[in-house]
Amino acid sequence: MLYKLVMKGVLLYSGGLDSSVLLYKLISKGIEIQALSLNYGQRHSRELQQAKEICQALGVNLKRLELSPLKELLLGNSQTCADIEVPEGHYTEESMKLTVVPNRNMMMLSIAIAWAVGLKYDAVYFAAHSGDHTIYPDCRPEFIQAVDACARICDWHPVRVLAPFSQLSKTDIVRLGAKLDMPFGKTWSCYKGGERHCGKCGTCVERKEAFAKAELPDPTLYED
Amino acid sequence: MLYKLVMKGVLLYSGGLDSSVLLYKLISKGIEIQALSLNYGQRHSRELQQAKEICQALGVNLKRLELSPLKELLLGNSQTCADIEVPEGHYTEESMKLTVVPNRNMMMLSIAIAWAVGLKYDAVYFAAHSGDHTIYPDCRPEFIQAVDACARICDWHPVRVLAPFSQLSKTDIVRLGAKLDMPFGKTWSCYKGGERHCGKCGTCVERKEAFAKAELPDPTLYED
Repeated sequence: MLYKLVMKGVLLYSGGLDSSVLLYKLISKGIEIQALSLNYGQRHSRELQQAKEICQALGVNLKRLELSPLKELLLGNSQTCADIEVPEGHYTEESMKLTVVPNRNMMMLSIAIAWAVGLKYDAVYFAAHSGDHTIYPDCRPEFIQAVDACARICDWHPVRVLAPFSQLSKTDIVRLGAKLDMPFGKTWSCYKGGERHCGKCGTCVERKEAFAKAELPDPTLYED
Repeated sequence: MLYKLVMKGVLLYSGGLDSSVLLYKLISKGIEIQALSLNYGQRHSRELQQAKEICQALGVNLKRLELSPLKELLLGNSQTCADIEVPEGHYTEESMKLTVVPNRNMMMLSIAIAWAVGLKYDAVYFAAHSGDHTIYPDCRPEFIQAVDACARICDWHPVRVLAPFSQLSKTDIVRLGAKLDMPFGKTWSCYKGGERHCGKCGTCVERKEAFAKAELPDPTLYED
């Protein structure tokens, strides 16, 4: 369904766990992929180094664009504003809102769509999952549908926006990654972007939990 | 209708004729405006200098972002590819397609929406007009509606995307600008981006025609 009709796609690729499993999944389906990483000035740009290493190992072409001036107008969030700290522990409604980069996914998807149009590719793939829905308004299925509606009519060459993990939990994604022999240790989740995963921020807590619930070993080196 | 409910907006502002008239119109309606200019590597970045001068004269805050690495993935068009020449004369279907930057408007609007969300502003204004519809798929009312649908749900703070000139011709816009005492000579249209307007490219031809049809003097200095 989400893979069958599409033979060529651009993957929005952060180097995080979710998009790395999606990359492996797409390759396993025989889909021709160009990967796209964007530096929008995020604190955790460390993830982009991981994206590069994983793509190199797989022989996938990765385009990385330096768009860090964007952060000048991405206000009020811990990921692009140096004066707002990354919240620790399980996400609460209050703390999760702090991590939301305004309209991040529409910006990134629209750039990926532009590239797909020029390449005459069929789709843009995006690794939003069901655990994201409660945290990020721009990961919800209705939002992805709205962006897909734009991509279908933005040019004479229509593009689809597909989020095959939209109904999966992070635990499901870890299970899928294990089946595909994904080297989890090479992926990056931590929002603090230090040398190692901090183990305390919301994304680290989620990452740990996903491995625990999937009853799979977590190869991640955490600071704590 | 398109102005009444909105008191604060971000204007996507190129320094061209259309968006300059829209800026004057919004100010005349008492709307608080932040203007946004984006350098995506366009050949005619000369227009951005005009945007700066016009905003300075009006006391409007203008944010200009340097995002020229974007052009690395904006393929197959005369505006961001050095090896594709800007077509001359009246647009034909063939020639007009050459000038289309893939998904340009969705990229620019999504960045403007991100800023509007952070500012807690109500809307993003965009100067697409009816003459654009036949040329640019991403200026059509159905496309603007699709982007508006994204902007309404991309965050807990909803934003509207408004294109008040969507049903106006360029001639109508010139007439409106004249009523608002717009200094037309300060705006920039030419896609070649030289020292003066070339007078030959599709946008120059349209600009000349709009003044002629509106029966108003054209203060533009053309090369030819």
